Amino acid sequence: MSVQTLKGFRDFLPGQMVIRNRVISILKKVFESYGFSELATPTLEYAEVLKGKYGEEAEKMMYLFTDQGGREVGLKYDMTVPLARVMAQYPDLPLPFKRYQIQPAFRAENTQKSRYREFYQCDIDTVGITSPIADAEILAVTSDCLFALGFKNFIIRVNSRQILKSITDSSTVLQSIDKLDKKTVDEVKQELQAKGLDASAIQEIFTKLDNLKPDDHLNEVIHLADKLGAKNIRFDPRLVRGLDYYTGPIFETVVTEPKIGSITGGGRYDQLIKTLGGPDLPAVGTTLGLDRICDVIQELNLWPDVIPASTQILVTVFSPDLFDNSLELSTQLRRSGKAVELYPDPRTKFEKQMKYANAKSIPFVAILGPEEIEKKVIKIKDMNSGEQKEMLIDQLVNW
Amino acid sequence: MSVQTLKGFRDFLPGQMVIRNRVISILKKVFESYGFSELATPTLEYAEVLKGKYGEEAEKMMYLFTDQGGREVGLKYDMTVPLARVMAQYPDLPLPFKRYQIQPAFRAENTQKSRYREFYQCDIDTVGITSPIADAEILAVTSDCLFALGFKNFIIRVNSRQILKSITDSSTVLQSIDKLDKKTVDEVKQELQAKGLDASAIQEIFTKLDNLKPDDHLNEVIHLADKLGAKNIRFDPRLVRGLDYYTGPIFETVVTEPKIGSITGGGRYDQLIKTLGGPDLPAVGTTLGLDRICDVIQELNLWPDVIPASTQILVTVFSPDLFDNSLELSTQLRRSGKAVELYPDPRTKFEKQMKYANAKSIPFVAILGPEEIEKKVIKIKDMNSGEQKEMLIDQLVNW
Repeated sequence: MSVQTLKGFRDFLPGQMVIRNRVISILKKVFESYGFSELATPTLEYAEVLKGKYGEEAEKMMYLFTDQGGREVGLKYDMTVPLARVMAQYPDLPLPFKRYQIQPAFRAENTQKSRYREFYQCDIDTVGITSPIADAEILAVTSDCLFALGFKNFIIRVNSRQILKSITDSSTVLQSIDKLDKKTVDEVKQELQAKGLDASAIQEIFTKLDNLKPDDHLNEVIHLADKLGAKNIRFDPRLVRGLDYYTGPIFETVVTEPKIGSITGGGRYDQLIKTLGGPDLPAVGTTLGLDRICDVIQELNLWPDVIPASTQILVTVFSPDLFDNSLELSTQLRRSGKAVELYPDPRTKFEKQMKYANAKSIPFVAILGPEEIEKKVIKIKDMNSGEQKEMLIDQLVNW
Repeated sequence: MSVQTLKGFRDFLPGQMVIRNRVISILKKVFESYGFSELATPTLEYAEVLKGKYGEEAEKMMYLFTDQGGREVGLKYDMTVPLARVMAQYPDLPLPFKRYQIQPAFRAENTQKSRYREFYQCDIDTVGITSPIADAEILAVTSDCLFALGFKNFIIRVNSRQILKSITDSSTVLQSIDKLDKKTVDEVKQELQAKGLDASAIQEIFTKLDNLKPDDHLNEVIHLADKLGAKNIRFDPRLVRGLDYYTGPIFETVVTEPKIGSITGGGRYDQLIKTLGGPDLPAVGTTLGLDRICDVIQELNLWPDVIPASTQILVTVFSPDLFDNSLELSTQLRRSGKAVELYPDPRTKFEKQMKYANAKSIPFVAILGPEEIEKKVIKIKDMNSGEQKEMLIDQLVNW
């Protein structure tokens, strides 16, 4: 048997799951604090639901196949197409429909760092209203999430497709402008030249770009986001965002410390739900790069205080005749709400039991030998500092 | 576009997600209290990993296909095969490896009530030890979970494949015995007759069955489970469980009030991990029927006090000129840790805002009109009882 995960697919072992679960729980709490509720949709959809939505390039990356019943089906490609289907399938959903969705999406991409074939999308969207408060809430959620995750320095770049239209309707020109955060002005000018624009047209584009101002809608979005407490919002006329479907404000977050680049992106897309087969409803939202956020937190050790174990205490066993004492202790600690593992084999040497706790990153070990039992105490060892202290059972239960 | 979910696949709308999330969080808490940690594995595996493991019937139900890179792949069929792969792929995992896993599995089954083609499996297993404490912990976890979910009357039936062996080695005979909870003794006797057994052989089987006693291992499991606080464990010689691979104790839970039948099942399977392509390691575990548990809680309204909404308060808006007041109130409540939705459109009639709160099952509504602003209070309406009361902002924040 090939004992490997597929390329681009990953196992999450217990230590990683602790970080992921913590990230997800922080994000959910912020989403729900703004009235967003969770939605989950199936892993498989009719191929018809998925196809013809995002162009040929996307379709090449979709996992499509025929099921046992002869149906053409496909694995979820993103969370937006299923959202459009949900809006069409349940016309009685009260509007605005504010939902978040944290589920895997599947794309047969070239694998590279932090890009996976099964990756978790984390989307929040408000469907059904054009009011700038909806856009502002997306910015406020983004800001609150980044602070809650512990990112100190970040910028939420905002712009609007409406005002970019005043420069050009050409999406190929916009694509070049979008590269201004990675390339120099001269490089972008050369690219535009290569695309057939003459020097004066290029100059005009840059002059217009430098003089762009937010329109009324975007001004109101920024004003309301500020009132909601969003921080570090910066109008940036050079922000374009890749996708064609945005119709109004667009957003992107850049985390500058630690320097990890863009981890959220979104905007208003008032036509898309309809284009995707849903009803004619405006929408605004953002996606958060969950995998990237989790990878970065682990790689840069951003949460040094988070122990990568869900178990808090390993109760060791001294000898076969004292096994019942350890079992009883583990039950008492469990009843007091603690996550406790009882070492299962009383014949295992103590050193090996300690090694086991270490290997599993369990932060504390409880020791209950004849000496402790006589003194009616439990010895607790802090596996990090190596410190040991004796505690009464009541102390330990309330610890 | 076909705006339908595939047959056997489901959307979970926000109200349902609240119940599911609560069930999952209760189960996780119990699992972790016994030192089980979470594992997640990919949705797709090499077909080679999945095939040839559970027989032809199972294979017919597997979603298998060829991906863009020409690889034969398949959707997860259960959590046990991936567990075996994980044990083989990471030989350095400390043993015992105690993991839980809550993820979707996929089977192209005939759809029927509470049987889905994408369903959530919820498995806990201890890999690497033969000690009865591992089996006992599975029983204790089961018992704790059922109490924590609020099921009052249940029986955890236990038996052992080891002792069933003393009656017969024939799995077709065992399959008939397994039906004794649904059929009468006479019906089962007829079935055995049809399978070619004569009357005296059948009589012998039933006499032996009635005289079965737990062996030493099972006695120790029951004794330890009791010490761990497990309740309602009953030795039942007529319990067989369908699957062939069990090698020792077997378990099944029957919930008698509400009358919902079997919702957990498991046992010891000391050969299976190796058979599935993993290393030669003993294991014991159980699966909890998460979808069935969630369906039953909703259908029978077992949690009448759980409000099917994650949002706690809808802050209504009285008029466009008072929108900022409502926005500010929503921010203050949010900062105090509450899940708050601000109604986004100040031109919407108050009645419609109340209808919206009702449709979304939001339990409380905050009202902030000119009268309230002058009196420096907020009116809070309980949407369930209809009661209204005025509160100072400080009271509300600490509410």
